[in-house]
Amino acid sequence: MTTYRERVLVEAIPHLINQEITLRGWVCRIRVLGKTVFVVLKDCTGELQCVAEPESIKEHHLKLEDTVEIVGRIRAEPRAKLGYELDIVRVHVLGRSGQHLPFTSYSNLESVSPETLVEYRPLAIRHEAIGNIFRVQAALLKYFREFLTQRHFTEIVTSKLVASGTEGGTNLFEVKYFDRIAYLAQSPQFYKEHGVAGFERVFETGHVYRAEPHATSRHLTEYYSLDLEFGFVDGPEDVIQLERELLTSIFASLNEWYGDILLSYRERPLPSMLEVPCWEFARCLELLKEHFNRTDLTDDLDPEAERQLCQLAARETGVPAVFVLGFPLSGRPFYTAPRGPAGAASSFDLLFRGIEITTGGQRLHRREDLEHALRSRGMDPANFESHLKMFEMGMPPHGGLAIGLERLTAQVLNLSNVRQAALYPRDRTKLTP
Amino acid sequence: MTTYRERVLVEAIPHLINQEITLRGWVCRIRVLGKTVFVVLKDCTGELQCVAEPESIKEHHLKLEDTVEIVGRIRAEPRAKLGYELDIVRVHVLGRSGQHLPFTSYSNLESVSPETLVEYRPLAIRHEAIGNIFRVQAALLKYFREFLTQRHFTEIVTSKLVASGTEGGTNLFEVKYFDRIAYLAQSPQFYKEHGVAGFERVFETGHVYRAEPHATSRHLTEYYSLDLEFGFVDGPEDVIQLERELLTSIFASLNEWYGDILLSYRERPLPSMLEVPCWEFARCLELLKEHFNRTDLTDDLDPEAERQLCQLAARETGVPAVFVLGFPLSGRPFYTAPRGPAGAASSFDLLFRGIEITTGGQRLHRREDLEHALRSRGMDPANFESHLKMFEMGMPPHGGLAIGLERLTAQVLNLSNVRQAALYPRDRTKLTP
Repeated sequence: MTTYRERVLVEAIPHLINQEITLRGWVCRIRVLGKTVFVVLKDCTGELQCVAEPESIKEHHLKLEDTVEIVGRIRAEPRAKLGYELDIVRVHVLGRSGQHLPFTSYSNLESVSPETLVEYRPLAIRHEAIGNIFRVQAALLKYFREFLTQRHFTEIVTSKLVASGTEGGTNLFEVKYFDRIAYLAQSPQFYKEHGVAGFERVFETGHVYRAEPHATSRHLTEYYSLDLEFGFVDGPEDVIQLERELLTSIFASLNEWYGDILLSYRERPLPSMLEVPCWEFARCLELLKEHFNRTDLTDDLDPEAERQLCQLAARETGVPAVFVLGFPLSGRPFYTAPRGPAGAASSFDLLFRGIEITTGGQRLHRREDLEHALRSRGMDPANFESHLKMFEMGMPPHGGLAIGLERLTAQVLNLSNVRQAALYPRDRTKLTP
Repeated sequence: MTTYRERVLVEAIPHLINQEITLRGWVCRIRVLGKTVFVVLKDCTGELQCVAEPESIKEHHLKLEDTVEIVGRIRAEPRAKLGYELDIVRVHVLGRSGQHLPFTSYSNLESVSPETLVEYRPLAIRHEAIGNIFRVQAALLKYFREFLTQRHFTEIVTSKLVASGTEGGTNLFEVKYFDRIAYLAQSPQFYKEHGVAGFERVFETGHVYRAEPHATSRHLTEYYSLDLEFGFVDGPEDVIQLERELLTSIFASLNEWYGDILLSYRERPLPSMLEVPCWEFARCLELLKEHFNRTDLTDDLDPEAERQLCQLAARETGVPAVFVLGFPLSGRPFYTAPRGPAGAASSFDLLFRGIEITTGGQRLHRREDLEHALRSRGMDPANFESHLKMFEMGMPPHGGLAIGLERLTAQVLNLSNVRQAALYPRDRTKLTP
């Protein structure tokens, strides 16, 4: 056997024609054609067809998903898809796969249930189609961070173990913290506001937790939140404009570098988001009444209304996305800035292809306003003292937003359930694998 | 008042000489010299000296840490540090700071306790010296991810809510998960191994949790772990070599882009790590005996021994860092691969400037070996079934490592306590802010 350092990745092979090389990877296809066996080997950079006489490798009993080392010589072969293939000199089995896998990394997955794809995660993500969901997800993370870093945002890492919730104590998971109770953070909201007072512009990517017993296609109890917050804004429109530019930049990079993957999941490249309109909540209710005869909505939207508004936006702009601004203040967290005197909030949702993928807005930035807001909701400012005192250290007007990574991934790739965009989804009933 | 879109960042000013512009930021210094008041304004890109007649801005009662908008004209001024300054036309106060802050963003912090710097986080990180710790931390994250992405590692996001621990149930925080008990993950170990079986190379940056009542300068109950894992290795030496290259790359980027900050915290730029030696655990015990007369160590190192070994390494290579390989297997988790027949483990620590900043190694990759290891430690493989079955889906030999972000930050910047490198440190007693 050779060593790891001599091992060559499939991507390097074009420079190695006529040389003897060592590959390591998975056996992802085996085919016997007359006196030749074709073994396709896959590593993290690609696939290569390897050929031998069946007798010469029979003793290894190769089967799909085994991990192997293959030593051989690269030969130009005009009939091969890549223009070359490898003549096997010797094979060494590194690890055996099981005998009874419900699918392989080349199966047609149409008849495989989403639950099975989670139970067999390693195999599922080795499959190109499922692996690509998480490659796109990793790219979303990368482009999110890159855009914000270029705009002078500083990445922060804040605690997920907190003494109280950001929204007043509902839907929190309890943690036994030595002789006390702690909670899992629902959001890094407080910490990113502190971050604004320090760095002006901050972002964080991390898990958040909601102890909600939902059983829908759009909710998880643990999800990954792309959070940002920044100072010196005049209003929520400045946050909305930043998100237009952020998503447009992310989508353009995805189109450029992941175009083929996108087109295997959706009909067209991702759109520019620069012209996505912003509609006031009150106007949304009117539009829903006028176009869809919805008279049942008063203080919030439901999933059906979110789909209907995206439909209206698509008619107007060609893109099924709309910012809804000015939800009723009473339904928003205490730190939300008001919008005018009529009970509206300076907060918005971004609806994209029928689902809310972002909540954001302007926040209160004066301690006395926060205290007033807490009291008017029947909460005691004393319970928030360690947070409120941060507003005495030089806090600019500020706002921000949070994008759910799994929802964004699902909407970008046209997936019907947010669980398909979580490697290990967590809900009311699911805690393994 | 002007609008957010008209607002100019300090970094753009060199292109705006003789123009009237709008700045927004913090008042970070005020000085009256005869008939002139100098107000230094700070935003996320820099600082600018603004000047006025004291009378003209008296009504605003500006004080340190207030947030303001300043409109004025940029004038070339050879006596100013930057070669220009701003003549104030008008000021608008956006937010007032409190009256009794224990320090300001320009204070000498020598007499300010670390606890106060956490209690006043926004103000502390607005201070250049403290803010720079977290700028370097953000850069460590960025360079870690960039290096690995270039090497074909895929970023993964895995659940922190798990049904059992990776190391068999000790030191886990319990979470009330609806009508069940869940635990906070001590490590993404299992999930990154599954990830290897899918993607071959994976990394994750995220929080991990240890319910250990330590009260030392190096332990936190919640810390941020830089995890990577990859397949097809021959042994732990391949993981060690990757870490040498990874840290060398990260350090070179830090030297290039954060050189001034580094030199405000340490005497010299960060070293290349390519020549960091790897010593067997048994040899370390001999060296400690020979050079420091340590006869008390048998199956592990203590903090003193870690410092002593770094001292010996520094004498040999000039860099106070050493990989210690081959710890006793009995002290390592069940999934650790053995190293030879004498009870040693294929796992290593990286000691850097006297502290362990990494644990890594090769893992068992055959289901039967894992079952055997579990039984030999008195654990029941049935409790690990949802993990063990992943080893039947094509698992290559593999290894990986985890770097503690706070420890790495502390060692890079010469900080004496890991809490200085956590925005919101968590320990036995600390749950706020």
